Amino acid sequence: MHRETLASTTLDAFEAHLERAVDELDAASPTRALVREHFAFGDPAAKRGKRLRPRILLTVAESEGGRAEDAFPAAAAVELLHNFSLVHDDIEDRDELRHGRPTLWVRHGIPAALTAGDAMCALSFTALLGGAPAADPERAVAMTTALHRTLYALCSGQGADIGFETSPAVSFAEYITMIERKTAALFAAACQLGALAAGASQQRAGAYGLMGRAYGLAFQVRDDVLGTWGTPADTGKPAGADIRRRKWSFPVAWAMDGPPSDDRDVVAGAYASIGELDDATADAVIASLERLGARRAADDACDAYIAQAAAVAAEHHLDRDGRLAAIFAATARRTA
Amino acid sequence: MHRETLASTTLDAFEAHLERAVDELDAASPTRALVREHFAFGDPAAKRGKRLRPRILLTVAESEGGRAEDAFPAAAAVELLHNFSLVHDDIEDRDELRHGRPTLWVRHGIPAALTAGDAMCALSFTALLGGAPAADPERAVAMTTALHRTLYALCSGQGADIGFETSPAVSFAEYITMIERKTAALFAAACQLGALAAGASQQRAGAYGLMGRAYGLAFQVRDDVLGTWGTPADTGKPAGADIRRRKWSFPVAWAMDGPPSDDRDVVAGAYASIGELDDATADAVIASLERLGARRAADDACDAYIAQAAAVAAEHHLDRDGRLAAIFAATARRTA
Repeated sequence: MHRETLASTTLDAFEAHLERAVDELDAASPTRALVREHFAFGDPAAKRGKRLRPRILLTVAESEGGRAEDAFPAAAAVELLHNFSLVHDDIEDRDELRHGRPTLWVRHGIPAALTAGDAMCALSFTALLGGAPAADPERAVAMTTALHRTLYALCSGQGADIGFETSPAVSFAEYITMIERKTAALFAAACQLGALAAGASQQRAGAYGLMGRAYGLAFQVRDDVLGTWGTPADTGKPAGADIRRRKWSFPVAWAMDGPPSDDRDVVAGAYASIGELDDATADAVIASLERLGARRAADDACDAYIAQAAAVAAEHHLDRDGRLAAIFAATARRTA
Repeated sequence: MHRETLASTTLDAFEAHLERAVDELDAASPTRALVREHFAFGDPAAKRGKRLRPRILLTVAESEGGRAEDAFPAAAAVELLHNFSLVHDDIEDRDELRHGRPTLWVRHGIPAALTAGDAMCALSFTALLGGAPAADPERAVAMTTALHRTLYALCSGQGADIGFETSPAVSFAEYITMIERKTAALFAAACQLGALAAGASQQRAGAYGLMGRAYGLAFQVRDDVLGTWGTPADTGKPAGADIRRRKWSFPVAWAMDGPPSDDRDVVAGAYASIGELDDATADAVIASLERLGARRAADDACDAYIAQAAAVAAEHHLDRDGRLAAIFAATARRTA
């Protein structure tokens, strides 16, 4: 674990803020109980999400001279939007476990879980603007517009990812566009909204967005490497989970974009099949990817995106205390 | 059909605007194709939605001295949000047909349909604020806040409705709260946003919202009456469709709230069972509801809500040309 950049009292206060935002839902509503269950509120022993996006947002807000408390509504908004997408993704991917607990659709059926996800999306937006009239309506419009566009990007990326499952071929460029939307857009929004919440100019907030986007790409590429080469201890999933399920990931998209070879044929053949891969086929694909250099290419790409984030920061004098770069380095480090 | 209150050129121009709003989605994205298919864009022969909510919104905007064109973004936003909820409801209710065409989840599977619904929600928000910087940020915040709260209400109402399916008892008050959120909130938003788009004060727009809420309740109660007593020609569904599926509706909630009787026991017994009702049981429930006076009670409630809308209009001098009342009267008239 890296050294935390935010005071633990700040993180505890944010967690309480997030819980209050969820409790805006009707006490009598079954949806509220589901959303609370998803977040494991009221169960201190349960493993929760890392709150990475709020931590990034609050760190930017503090770096820009704002008070973390003033950025809590925006931080709750990004965490709620992230969890909206997790709940719907779990339904779509038929994932049965998250943080070691059964997912909402497994426990409550698809209709109730789908609606709970929708409610998290709604809460994300109501959390952002809060109850009081906006003191600075121009800033409020900028923040809400950023969140609207992020939702759009999430859906567009998720739609592309679903399309990949039945697509005969996915180009490397299509793959990068997909993760830019599905993952990087929300990290971009976290950085941008943190800056806006602290009173930074829209231009400066936009530069933070570029920094967050580069980091988000690094984060996803690292996640892809772990999905192929990570151990169950790293990921909480079986080794090679992405490959077994024939998920498109950076190493696969990169390898398929390369020149023809026997190893590339192994990957292509497995990805053209239907259903889950058996252990032997998955192991063969992973060995081919390794020999093709896909793991090194992914690690290099991860480094390059982190360097890009640093370059944006240097150009615009962002992240002056280096705390954001510390979070990035700790969560998107190369694996080998 | 009632005489249309809007020029047909205005409705055609709005339809083109709505299609352009959808086409903001990536041309290469499978999600765009699904959303276009849901709206039957590119298929002039297909039966489409009535666009009732946009028609209400544009009528209010014109009544308040605005140009319909200036209200197109808000009208597209309410229609997109309405259709987001339809696509997700179809998944949750396993409905296989809409406007005589197979629903998205039937044709493309739950994952792609769920994401297409999410994308419509995202498009609703991006359509509202459009691409240009807001000329009047305070108004933009008011409009976007209204739409956020409407999404929240839709999810909260849908969550309650799903909960009813497994609830041992639903009170009449719980039922009214549910339809207030699931149906009336979006009609309220259509009226409120139409007024805001035309430059009305937030107070005046709020009064329009109250008028729309009352109408929305009338609309839903009328829909409930048709779901029990409507013919296939009225509804496009088999007679007694709501009863057969044991859906809670106004007549049922009203009857169950009444004093004990043999007829009430017939309804209660059927609704405590599991799965679809057979023809004989459904017919018995409908006959009991009729004898209990539930149909007349529903028709009276529909009239009362329409009268309430008229009273709000009179008090605040809304709908000065009576065109909104004409739409309400035509679409929520009593059935007997």
